[in-house]
Amino acid sequence: MEFVYEGKTKDVYALEDGNYLLKFKDDVTGEDGVFDPGANTVGLQIEGAGKAGLRLTTYFFEILKDRGIPTHYIDANIDEAEMIVKPAKMFGKGLEVICRYKAVGSFLRRYGMYAKEGQELDAFVEVTLKDDDRQDPPISADALHMLGILSLDEYVELKSLTQKISGIVKEELAKKGIDLYDIKLEFGRMDEGNGIMLIDEISGGNMRAYKNGVYIEPLKLEKMLS
Amino acid sequence: MEFVYEGKTKDVYALEDGNYLLKFKDDVTGEDGVFDPGANTVGLQIEGAGKAGLRLTTYFFEILKDRGIPTHYIDANIDEAEMIVKPAKMFGKGLEVICRYKAVGSFLRRYGMYAKEGQELDAFVEVTLKDDDRQDPPISADALHMLGILSLDEYVELKSLTQKISGIVKEELAKKGIDLYDIKLEFGRMDEGNGIMLIDEISGGNMRAYKNGVYIEPLKLEKMLS
Repeated sequence: MEFVYEGKTKDVYALEDGNYLLKFKDDVTGEDGVFDPGANTVGLQIEGAGKAGLRLTTYFFEILKDRGIPTHYIDANIDEAEMIVKPAKMFGKGLEVICRYKAVGSFLRRYGMYAKEGQELDAFVEVTLKDDDRQDPPISADALHMLGILSLDEYVELKSLTQKISGIVKEELAKKGIDLYDIKLEFGRMDEGNGIMLIDEISGGNMRAYKNGVYIEPLKLEKMLS
Repeated sequence: MEFVYEGKTKDVYALEDGNYLLKFKDDVTGEDGVFDPGANTVGLQIEGAGKAGLRLTTYFFEILKDRGIPTHYIDANIDEAEMIVKPAKMFGKGLEVICRYKAVGSFLRRYGMYAKEGQELDAFVEVTLKDDDRQDPPISADALHMLGILSLDEYVELKSLTQKISGIVKEELAKKGIDLYDIKLEFGRMDEGNGIMLIDEISGGNMRAYKNGVYIEPLKLEKMLS
């Protein structure tokens, strides 16, 4: 296998059969030594973080497979912190898709004139560009279309898949009495055909989860669920 | 008539017949004594700025009336810097609607990874909240709907009216060899019925206009057109 790309929390290798291997690392994003899933910098290493992230990702991707939701997931070896995935084509230089059930974080910072902290949101979907230099700006369906990043039909599919997947994750967390406030997903185009599939991972670092109003740290969430 | 509200560049009075009188002032927005139409603070006074703004506004609103575009405009007295308008209901605490033909300004600051400075944009419409404390954040149709500011049907109408009106302004400027890069409009709900109409003004301070690649100052633009 051939090394392709070093990510912040995962390394990517190309396999001979056309698929890819993702190696989950113990590096976690954060600043000043504090774990912050929303940060764009790698702040520290936590032993076992890679395997914990992969364990939760595998847990959710297996559920999505059973529900017929398209993802890039093929198989995982948790002891080696490795996941085998299908090839995917990125949208532009990468998008993040956020689904919100409660008004917190950047949503509240932007729309605090109209929303109260913690107010219920109805699976609200928004897309941000992956662009560290410009603080990952939110972008509308029209702008994504006009800039050639995503067609309007793809946007409709992206939004619908995001609400389905987020709903499934929310439902799974609810079984353990955990509330999902928001979740960040990534999608790609399938190598063949024009369909869209979920890529990357679904782990504690992708979501804000609370129990009885108390925020659950990503690694703790992974222990509570798997 | 009764004083209602002191705006940055206009004062508002209620008339006995239910309509309103807008008094255009010589105050212009800007910072550190420099005229900047995009600024949220009133920086200086320029003699004749109020009348010049009203003259251009009247010029465009009369054209829009002829084209059957709904606006709040009834009549104007340029010597007194006064415009009589219909009553309108605001969307939330106020929105601005921007139509872009060239990638400049905040569009470029946000989407510079995908757009080059001055790149053609196809009458791209975006909405921002009027919220000085939060730097007038852009907001999507879905968020406007979810926060109860605008229905999805109203958004469709708003976007369509914005493109029509901006197209007319662009066409008028083009007759004098002037290029419209972008324009900012405001809309309100009509007092009776559910329709949407253009409110506020259309003057140099609402748009970025260029001639042979050189930016035209708002007051100069008003002289060139009227």
